[in-house]
Amino acid sequence: MQVSVLFSGGKDSSLSAILLEPFFEVELVTCGFSLLPVGEVASQTAERLGFPHRVIKPDTSILEKAYDMIMQDGFPKNAINYIHKSFIEHLATDDNINFIADGVRRDDRVPVLEHSEIRSIEDRFGVHYVCPLKGFGRAAVNELVKEHLIIEEGLSENVLKADYETELREIISQRNGSGKIKEIFPTHVQSHVIERRKADRTEQHD
Amino acid sequence: MQVSVLFSGGKDSSLSAILLEPFFEVELVTCGFSLLPVGEVASQTAERLGFPHRVIKPDTSILEKAYDMIMQDGFPKNAINYIHKSFIEHLATDDNINFIADGVRRDDRVPVLEHSEIRSIEDRFGVHYVCPLKGFGRAAVNELVKEHLIIEEGLSENVLKADYETELREIISQRNGSGKIKEIFPTHVQSHVIERRKADRTEQHD
Repeated sequence: MQVSVLFSGGKDSSLSAILLEPFFEVELVTCGFSLLPVGEVASQTAERLGFPHRVIKPDTSILEKAYDMIMQDGFPKNAINYIHKSFIEHLATDDNINFIADGVRRDDRVPVLEHSEIRSIEDRFGVHYVCPLKGFGRAAVNELVKEHLIIEEGLSENVLKADYETELREIISQRNGSGKIKEIFPTHVQSHVIERRKADRTEQHD
Repeated sequence: MQVSVLFSGGKDSSLSAILLEPFFEVELVTCGFSLLPVGEVASQTAERLGFPHRVIKPDTSILEKAYDMIMQDGFPKNAINYIHKSFIEHLATDDNINFIADGVRRDDRVPVLEHSEIRSIEDRFGVHYVCPLKGFGRAAVNELVKEHLIIEEGLSENVLKADYETELREIISQRNGSGKIKEIFPTHVQSHVIERRKADRTEQHD
């Protein structure tokens, strides 16, 4: 069975792929609107993890609509959820994709699909949407990350990650200046995966 | 890292153990009050799956309190949730147990811990409580089960499983007769694991 794992280059999506690897043929997929080289950054990380990777560019109208939402709301939650859901629906229309995996953890709030949205996507498109970390709290995820990944953590404005926030920030910066970003986005710690721990892959080839 | 997986002999707890196996040293633990040989049934299944297994007997007062609850309620939900939570707390007090895994799926309703109960148990006892299938819907679980397990399914009164319901049914049958069981428990389909698919273990030793 094949699974397409939503991949930002962060620890949660990387760990999700690692947890699925013994049971699925894993490919990583990154959403990129070509505003910034987020796809290339993700590709490099994917290569270090040892997984095949694709950058997928959904219709630019999705980023435009998200931009309108965030400028109206003054906070990023709805815009990020909108891009997330649109990207998953975009993947779900691909006849070759049967399982879509998302790195969402137990305590994550954004981006998260509502239960009804999950059921709707699974029913409309005939796909399975799975979240391998949904039943894991932050501390348990950290234990697994420590065993399998080498990461760097930093404030969100200093770490180039291939998540939805990165290109949303960029479009706001281009149109409204960097002051607007500081107004809208809370600063938070981001993780970026540097390397996979060697022991991990050795074990799998025992 | 070691994990103790709550084990009933059913497909969800078996699959949870299989999903964790590449990343943890797995042991299976079954709750048994010695009213019926549920521990022996679970042990046989555990052996076929290839995991070490322990039967753990919490204080009988837990079954007694659950009996009082179910007789008062007239339905099993609260009593089953009570045994479930008590058993997890019992495990969490064991200094050698750091990770407790539960086979609960995305759509499961009983037994399920509330979010606040999970946080409370993790904080009070310093354990990680993880649910590998929490982010998987029924159809996705069935796909994985098909690949890894051979199961038999039957109505709940005909399949001897090592779940909390089995001994609750027995204590009611002993004290109030089998008619009372039919009144309280809805009939539902239960799964029992017969065997692990060979390909599964071969792959892991590639």
